[in-house]
Amino acid sequence: MLSLCRISAYGTLRRCIRHRSPDSLALARHYSRFTSQDLSDTSLSSSTLSHCAPYPSRTHTCGSLTAGDAGARVVLTGWILPERKGKLVSFYPLKDSYGTTQLIVNHSEGNPDLSALAKVPVESTVLIEGTVLLRPPSARRPGITGDIDVQVVKFTVLNTAGTLPFVPSNPHNVANDDLRARYRYLDLRRSALSENLKKRSQVTQIIRSILHEQDFIEVETPVLLRSSPEGAREFLVPTRISTASSDGTDTQHALFYALQQSPQQPKQLLICSGGVDKYFQIAKCFRDEDGRKDRQPEFTQIDMEMAFVSWGSHEFTKVENTNVWRIGGGEVRDVVETLLRRIWEKIEGVSLPKGFKVMTYNEAMTRFGSDKPDTRFGLEISTITHLLPVKQRNVFDSDGEALECLVVRKAGDEKFIAASRACDGDSAVERIAITKRNINSWLLNATTHRSLHEISPDDISHINESLQLTPGDDIWLARRPKSPKGGLTALGSVRLRLFESAQSRNDIVVTKEPHFLWITEFPLFTQADTDKEFLAKGRWSSSHHPFTAPMWQDIDAMYRGHIDSVRGQHYDLVLNGMEIGGGSVRVHDAAMQDHIFTHILQLNEAEKAPFQHLLHALQCGAPPHGGIALGFDRMMATLCKTQSIRDVIAFPKTSTGADLVFRSPAPISNEVLYQYGIQPRPTT
Amino acid sequence: MLSLCRISAYGTLRRCIRHRSPDSLALARHYSRFTSQDLSDTSLSSSTLSHCAPYPSRTHTCGSLTAGDAGARVVLTGWILPERKGKLVSFYPLKDSYGTTQLIVNHSEGNPDLSALAKVPVESTVLIEGTVLLRPPSARRPGITGDIDVQVVKFTVLNTAGTLPFVPSNPHNVANDDLRARYRYLDLRRSALSENLKKRSQVTQIIRSILHEQDFIEVETPVLLRSSPEGAREFLVPTRISTASSDGTDTQHALFYALQQSPQQPKQLLICSGGVDKYFQIAKCFRDEDGRKDRQPEFTQIDMEMAFVSWGSHEFTKVENTNVWRIGGGEVRDVVETLLRRIWEKIEGVSLPKGFKVMTYNEAMTRFGSDKPDTRFGLEISTITHLLPVKQRNVFDSDGEALECLVVRKAGDEKFIAASRACDGDSAVERIAITKRNINSWLLNATTHRSLHEISPDDISHINESLQLTPGDDIWLARRPKSPKGGLTALGSVRLRLFESAQSRNDIVVTKEPHFLWITEFPLFTQADTDKEFLAKGRWSSSHHPFTAPMWQDIDAMYRGHIDSVRGQHYDLVLNGMEIGGGSVRVHDAAMQDHIFTHILQLNEAEKAPFQHLLHALQCGAPPHGGIALGFDRMMATLCKTQSIRDVIAFPKTSTGADLVFRSPAPISNEVLYQYGIQPRPTT
Repeated sequence: MLSLCRISAYGTLRRCIRHRSPDSLALARHYSRFTSQDLSDTSLSSSTLSHCAPYPSRTHTCGSLTAGDAGARVVLTGWILPERKGKLVSFYPLKDSYGTTQLIVNHSEGNPDLSALAKVPVESTVLIEGTVLLRPPSARRPGITGDIDVQVVKFTVLNTAGTLPFVPSNPHNVANDDLRARYRYLDLRRSALSENLKKRSQVTQIIRSILHEQDFIEVETPVLLRSSPEGAREFLVPTRISTASSDGTDTQHALFYALQQSPQQPKQLLICSGGVDKYFQIAKCFRDEDGRKDRQPEFTQIDMEMAFVSWGSHEFTKVENTNVWRIGGGEVRDVVETLLRRIWEKIEGVSLPKGFKVMTYNEAMTRFGSDKPDTRFGLEISTITHLLPVKQRNVFDSDGEALECLVVRKAGDEKFIAASRACDGDSAVERIAITKRNINSWLLNATTHRSLHEISPDDISHINESLQLTPGDDIWLARRPKSPKGGLTALGSVRLRLFESAQSRNDIVVTKEPHFLWITEFPLFTQADTDKEFLAKGRWSSSHHPFTAPMWQDIDAMYRGHIDSVRGQHYDLVLNGMEIGGGSVRVHDAAMQDHIFTHILQLNEAEKAPFQHLLHALQCGAPPHGGIALGFDRMMATLCKTQSIRDVIAFPKTSTGADLVFRSPAPISNEVLYQYGIQPRPTT
Repeated sequence: MLSLCRISAYGTLRRCIRHRSPDSLALARHYSRFTSQDLSDTSLSSSTLSHCAPYPSRTHTCGSLTAGDAGARVVLTGWILPERKGKLVSFYPLKDSYGTTQLIVNHSEGNPDLSALAKVPVESTVLIEGTVLLRPPSARRPGITGDIDVQVVKFTVLNTAGTLPFVPSNPHNVANDDLRARYRYLDLRRSALSENLKKRSQVTQIIRSILHEQDFIEVETPVLLRSSPEGAREFLVPTRISTASSDGTDTQHALFYALQQSPQQPKQLLICSGGVDKYFQIAKCFRDEDGRKDRQPEFTQIDMEMAFVSWGSHEFTKVENTNVWRIGGGEVRDVVETLLRRIWEKIEGVSLPKGFKVMTYNEAMTRFGSDKPDTRFGLEISTITHLLPVKQRNVFDSDGEALECLVVRKAGDEKFIAASRACDGDSAVERIAITKRNINSWLLNATTHRSLHEISPDDISHINESLQLTPGDDIWLARRPKSPKGGLTALGSVRLRLFESAQSRNDIVVTKEPHFLWITEFPLFTQADTDKEFLAKGRWSSSHHPFTAPMWQDIDAMYRGHIDSVRGQHYDLVLNGMEIGGGSVRVHDAAMQDHIFTHILQLNEAEKAPFQHLLHALQCGAPPHGGIALGFDRMMATLCKTQSIRDVIAFPKTSTGADLVFRSPAPISNEVLYQYGIQPRPTT
């Protein structure tokens, strides 16, 4: 029996032991045997005992005592960690979520009760009363509580830990993923995880402070929304409301909410209302996507929308060069950059540049083979169709293709050359090692395109000069569609493969400086997105969503039917090759929005129905507006230096959407389903 | 044709007019006729035109210009309101969400284009360029922009308003509720509503600031949880995951998430983990309740939980008097009071007392006939069974009843006496007007209980003395169960009726001072709650939830099976007779929690299954903990001086759960349901 009520000296507290009269104790111990199979594998001890009576408040946390507190009488609470036994004294770390304080128990002291502390199971919660001792200088350690110990005068076990599935305080023995996911409440006791939750809380508060300073209003929008065919599959929520079927059969039409995929429509309506000039929300969103790695069925986004967005400082720029923001929404860009600068400054101590880099979609696809380029390293791609002789150029042109290459230079790309030589091409890309022997003939055997086999040595020499090829270089060759189709090109993929390979060979160390980059001027419509084909059925679909405004320079072209040439006022924010946000200036002209729905996307009346309120809101004097949504989980994963968003979510789900702690999803009885007008369907 | 691109003087901006070539304009006008029936009732004009090209950024909002800006050239954007035409000038209010600025157009000026502003439909969005003029002293008005006008130099119509279903800027003609709900995006343009949203945003930021200052961590818990029988009906979310049925039939068991009713279990697990010492979340919660007035299927609560809650400063109090916090969770109480004090101070300019009043459940029920007493007025109830002769007392006692009365005194309760005299009793309560004639016999004809008819004049005189009755008083009489059963007693209901009646007669003015009150020492278990009967099926159920800890003084009684006498460490927070929050110290002893599940609530294994992770977490060294949830919508309704929580929610649902803007809930096709393993059930 553990020392339970070691607080009898506390005057009236004597009453506290009354709650553990022999009878009730016996009862309690009787009932503490868990019968559930669920718990059988953890072999819970029947001697688990808790203190359920009054106890004094803690005076300090385990992360707060310093040399200045020496001599003070303190009360601490926390989790007791393994004893380190010395000849004269024993040491116990006492940990809470603020830190760890070292306890000392003197063996020589006349209080044999204190030695019982050694019998308290590790990870039990205890209340300690003791005195702060200044450590001798040689024993001081860095960290807040490193200058002191607390000599234990009394202790109370508040709750005894049973046999644990794993010991979270043991940093050398982290349990396997499955066990940790199942006992997440124990895994969260590890500082590595709990520090992530703290950082997440801190970052949301930084975000909110800045946005409030800038007169943004945080508005909660409905989670229970209406199903609309915007993109990803939605989660449905049956209601007990139903309507009689109109088809004469004896079925009821149960009615459903859909969980919001994003607050896109509500936030646009808010801004259209004029009641909110700048909106934000740190919003929970839901998508029923097929188990994609590192996606969660529920995720969090920092969602913003602003009325009267205009062209900011880049308003009149005509330059076609790189790094120019030629679209609207400059105010959104400014706010986001302010947010991120402040976050990286406060959390990482890093100063981000004022004015993140900007790149057009076209430039990103041609120079990096990706619409979310990782610009932390070079290995840029060159289009070389124009270097070919006229005949070959015409072949590519008439196929609607371009020839592109990526040169890994012996001199200049030393860090990547070994990786390149270790990589093989495939049907889409080919690697040619340039040697003294083949430098004037290397294209003749290229498998990339037969037409290249007829090129003359002079033409090859011309290409070599342009590319500054030298023996020892590797050149990667591939064809790509002349107008980029998004995603990764074959060479874009090679580029990332070489980067990863060079890292795993320890040939390069990745820069710690975060590379933020805006991608702009995306095509507004696409017929190439297989993800959207189930809705588009051969029609054009919106590259992002149907509310994105065209660049004003392309409005004429849009109305004239040159749909493929229309660029949108969309902007993606990319961090180290990861898309962490995207937004746009929206259509605020009801006629234009209706034109897009009816004549470009060719929606029928039923498909247009979920957008009627938005169309009408635009007619009610909606202001020009634009916004953005930033993926908060992914941003936090970056800030917490982890690859997995699960490390920054308190209770994440697996890649198949299962919650191993709460055991969801779970079956529901037919009786309950009946109330919602539904029943299980037969298998077929 | 409205003046569209009145910005040609802006050098390069000449390009902007290009997007409206005659062809595209004709196209746009063609497409702007809405065909949808949905919009037909609003008669949208086909001349709706928007400006989709660059325009200068606003330099100020409509709520920011002051005398100090006189002479400045400014750019404003906003909604144009009706013209007030004078001989020499016209005035137009320009409104945005920050305020209103008065525009001036000089008729005499040589720019006839400006007169076109009169033709712009009211509620259109316009961009104004102009000069700030100081008003002559006699024309100055209170308010930030009351000292200035802006003389219009140029204007651009950014978006023309069509015919509106109602004009939100007209304060004298507020549309009917249904129209306003359907066109919420227009209704939100009314300052009355948009100010509520701003206040709500401001209050959440105050709350977050305080809680962050106090080292609380905001943690997002899963919205997609598992169904558990905690109380209210849950919303279910079908998944595309299913398991084969184990009963041999050809049905699939579709698996479901349930939307969180509250983060109760996740937050307890967080605290049990030890990774978070103080948790909070402003959390969206969901309950599928039958259309109760002023409840929403989704609502927001301020949710908190703290580890190591103890007895605070009231720790050792033995006094049985009123206004004493005899339970645990003092830290929770302190935080909540700090929050509310700060909110009321910042939003209302009101200083709330340090230390809100505390009342036991028993006292609330006997003195006010309610477990959420409105203490803004008197009219206290007295139990008078003890004043009866022994014989009658025994009759009441043996029936388990008490006799109680409410005296409305001619001298003392003047404000209520007219209301009382105008009210009638019913089968549950009886009103007796005390006169000179009946003062010594008034009980003899009481319908409340037959036994009273045998009382002697002396006994009545004894009662009169105790109650200090005098002719002209009204006395209300009723019986009630001897141990209170929660809710309202008959006299508790009379008390509220008299209060409302006196208000509607203008006999009293309700104090503006908010009356906060803690109610403590609720019975831990109940058999009297009909709301819970569908789960309890004749068994005991928890008055609040099964995780509430008993008062430590009553633990013995609980283990001994005296279930009805066990009081819980639960606390409700009441504001002006409205419950705005509730919480408790939780059971942290796994054996006790299991005893409650198994031996008191008599849950079977299937019913206990959803709690296994919590039971196990308690076994892993869970600290003592407690928390609270405050109803944020209701609190905001009080702060916004409105009766309806719909006025503080951007897009509320009707009492039947319908969203008139987004038209949810809505039917879903059988094909989609099929993917989720469900189908409509036949009607029966």
